[in-house]
Amino acid sequence: MSERQRTQQGPLVVAIDSSTTSTKAIVVDTNGTVWATARRPIPLLTPAMDHYEHDPALWWRTSHETIGEVLGGLSQADRDRVAAIGITHQRESFAPFSADGTPLANGILWLDGRAAEQIERHGSAHVHELSGKPAGVTPAIYKMAWVTQHHPEWFARADKVTDVLGAIVFNLTGRWASSTAAADSLGLFDIQRRDWSDELLQIAGVRRDQMPELVAPASPIADIRPELAAEWGLARPIPVIAGLGDGQAAGIGAAAVDPGVGYLNMGTAVNAGVESGSYIYNPAFRTHVSGIPGNYVLEVLQSSGSYLAGWVRDTFGDPDHPGDPDVERDNAAAAAIAPGADGLVTLPYWNAVQSPYWDALARGAVVGWRGTHTRAHLYRSVLESICFEMRRNLDELADGTGTPITQLRIMGGGARSGVWRQIMADVTGVPLTVCLEEEISALGAAVLAMAAINAHAEPLADGSPDVASSARAMASFGETVHPDMELHERYRRIAAVHARLYPALRETFQELAALSQD
Amino acid sequence: MSERQRTQQGPLVVAIDSSTTSTKAIVVDTNGTVWATARRPIPLLTPAMDHYEHDPALWWRTSHETIGEVLGGLSQADRDRVAAIGITHQRESFAPFSADGTPLANGILWLDGRAAEQIERHGSAHVHELSGKPAGVTPAIYKMAWVTQHHPEWFARADKVTDVLGAIVFNLTGRWASSTAAADSLGLFDIQRRDWSDELLQIAGVRRDQMPELVAPASPIADIRPELAAEWGLARPIPVIAGLGDGQAAGIGAAAVDPGVGYLNMGTAVNAGVESGSYIYNPAFRTHVSGIPGNYVLEVLQSSGSYLAGWVRDTFGDPDHPGDPDVERDNAAAAAIAPGADGLVTLPYWNAVQSPYWDALARGAVVGWRGTHTRAHLYRSVLESICFEMRRNLDELADGTGTPITQLRIMGGGARSGVWRQIMADVTGVPLTVCLEEEISALGAAVLAMAAINAHAEPLADGSPDVASSARAMASFGETVHPDMELHERYRRIAAVHARLYPALRETFQELAALSQD
Repeated sequence: MSERQRTQQGPLVVAIDSSTTSTKAIVVDTNGTVWATARRPIPLLTPAMDHYEHDPALWWRTSHETIGEVLGGLSQADRDRVAAIGITHQRESFAPFSADGTPLANGILWLDGRAAEQIERHGSAHVHELSGKPAGVTPAIYKMAWVTQHHPEWFARADKVTDVLGAIVFNLTGRWASSTAAADSLGLFDIQRRDWSDELLQIAGVRRDQMPELVAPASPIADIRPELAAEWGLARPIPVIAGLGDGQAAGIGAAAVDPGVGYLNMGTAVNAGVESGSYIYNPAFRTHVSGIPGNYVLEVLQSSGSYLAGWVRDTFGDPDHPGDPDVERDNAAAAAIAPGADGLVTLPYWNAVQSPYWDALARGAVVGWRGTHTRAHLYRSVLESICFEMRRNLDELADGTGTPITQLRIMGGGARSGVWRQIMADVTGVPLTVCLEEEISALGAAVLAMAAINAHAEPLADGSPDVASSARAMASFGETVHPDMELHERYRRIAAVHARLYPALRETFQELAALSQD
Repeated sequence: MSERQRTQQGPLVVAIDSSTTSTKAIVVDTNGTVWATARRPIPLLTPAMDHYEHDPALWWRTSHETIGEVLGGLSQADRDRVAAIGITHQRESFAPFSADGTPLANGILWLDGRAAEQIERHGSAHVHELSGKPAGVTPAIYKMAWVTQHHPEWFARADKVTDVLGAIVFNLTGRWASSTAAADSLGLFDIQRRDWSDELLQIAGVRRDQMPELVAPASPIADIRPELAAEWGLARPIPVIAGLGDGQAAGIGAAAVDPGVGYLNMGTAVNAGVESGSYIYNPAFRTHVSGIPGNYVLEVLQSSGSYLAGWVRDTFGDPDHPGDPDVERDNAAAAAIAPGADGLVTLPYWNAVQSPYWDALARGAVVGWRGTHTRAHLYRSVLESICFEMRRNLDELADGTGTPITQLRIMGGGARSGVWRQIMADVTGVPLTVCLEEEISALGAAVLAMAAINAHAEPLADGSPDVASSARAMASFGETVHPDMELHERYRRIAAVHARLYPALRETFQELAALSQD
């Protein structure tokens, strides 16, 4: 970011990203230059096996504190330039509230796995088609059905049941409202109508009047409460702009807004997506409401990303360098192993498989072991496996849209690993361009805020804000990693072996799951 | 052994075990008490990938030195009690010699893998039925065919082509002869006739007159040369007794000579066997000539035994104890994991699979990984997997003989691991009795030498020496590990999952092998 200059004129926006681990606030200018960042952690609560929760009061408290911190660092002149607030959030998480915003129970998070029985009972191709969400752990609908079954009083007493963004918006503005590009992640939408589905609300056990009002992304929801404007030293209340889920926000922050250009987040989990002007649903991906009004985002998900690379490095010590963990050395060792890891192939399903199988019983597997293999072979095989999975999932996306993916914008911790991103380029056969901004989801929320105030372009002919132009103006890129197409051909053959592993092992996974029930 | 007393009268014998890593000589009395042990290493030569060789001159030199050392440590009175020499050897290894015993090429060892093409070409069910040896890496016949194809001059110039025991016997006695229970391992026998098969000699490319003469086990071959008797301070030349292969020898040393009593060697490789009065061949096991005249030994083989446990411990460091490897701590950590390793199952085919599939392309696999697994889970899963394989292989042996295995005598480094032997007992459901003698194969050769001189019993009605009585007299046992039959039932269900893994992955192994050919 060092080469980017702060603009001395024009609007600034504040953007919040309230995620699973923390809330971040940034101040951004029209170039996409981030002036300031503040962060407050949110403790992850695990009151029972597979239960993952937040104290929902922290969603607002951390937002309040971080916005105050970044605004407090500005001169009064710059503070007067702040024109809007954008928001992105961890998707699919929810909590029940009283009308004044008091939480009535802990928030239940996207990664919470308590609702296996409800997924089994209510998940179906029809629910997928209606909501855009294949049956699986993450959508709130199944966990809401769990609450309705096990703690009906939580919803009975609730005036509102909202996503994270909706809770923050209420505290900012006094209005119970969320963005269609944020609330749709609950899995309660008729996604093509972009409205709550009575059928899905009934499965969840919540009433329409308990849900927040819906606002199209990049449109103003309401101005902030006057007392907040005063507290933060703002000359007047500024509008809160309807934001979007953090996955779609990363794509907007990467300006992956054109056909054939996707985003690829090589984070703890790995996901990738493309914009689509029309509604498409497919077993391989989830369909979300896009931050670009009228669009959809098709997104593939692999839960085991850099999480798994770190797990291997942490679980198995390097006997040649005891007590001296070093990710750079591990990456160098993996880079020194030939493509294909000398015949070691891995299914990276340590956290089950999402795209394209969505099989909660699937587990990891490492196949092909010989005595000549080393810890570095395992590490390389794991990195390769994540890329083989992504290659297949990108093919599914391209099949879904009918448009080949010719460029990927990459982000996340894994994008900083030279060996992993080169394997990703070689395996997928697609050039990867590194996004420079670390808080890329927050940047995506800032893009929507800038678009809402027409900072870069006039509204489109249909009157909607020009999100794509703001995205292109604010994204910043580093190097592009080009695929070695000879290696790509060799990987193609290994990927074919990899692709047959899950079908070969599916029954074993079912048998192991049955054993664990005893 | 401390509680055992040296006998002050009766014969003593010297026994040699010439193995892959060293030659050992022991002096033993009629109680089976070992008075002295000497050892000389033999370097393993690896001139090319998958080529494993010895300098055959060392087979004799190490025997000569170790016999001299153990005899030199005796008083003259005890030396005068030494009545015979017994021999056991690494099976299946061979070398070409001139008539005076000069080696004409390096010895090619049982583990040498150069003959994949010849195995493919000549291996068949017919060869298995005739020789008792399923097609695979170890029998000499395929490596002899390789020599005939690639270095025909080695055999053209050779007066003799012998097994290790035959080479040692020539140097001891001046007679080119071997034991049927030793030479049959070359895979050139019509095993039911206990003689060389013209058909198999032709595949190997050697002539009948090049092979050593054959002597039944526990019968005298010849007296040692007078100059050796003089050198070693013996009053007179003593007989060399026809010995046996080290696998069968371990069974005799463990007195596993009765129906339903097997031996189980938990060594670098794991093997197990039972005696059989009749000839049986089966895809799951190899059939050898027994050290008990007229009998056969049915033996299952798993190449990845304590080798694999050590490989896991060495390849993956313990991040909680960096730089401080400790097998006892690793065993304790594995013992603390619940049976079934929390759903992690392993195919221990790091060195391919032998019994029951004999698939040279098979490789290791670890299936069922979750983020809650640890290094100790992997270690336990590997130990369990070796036991699951053995359980199935023991079932094959019992099916083959029609006699259930109700007792196992265990030996080898793995038998000293409390956790591993308990898992082995629980998984197999068979009580395991620990053999106290470490040089158990040499003890088996000593048993045959004692039987040949009728040290414990008169010859049997058919005139053959009573090997079983000498074995019972000389074996010594420690504790018996009893199976927990409740755990046995739980393991039975996990073993069923384990048993389906190889069929599920067979094609993947073939595909990985094809990829490695590119």
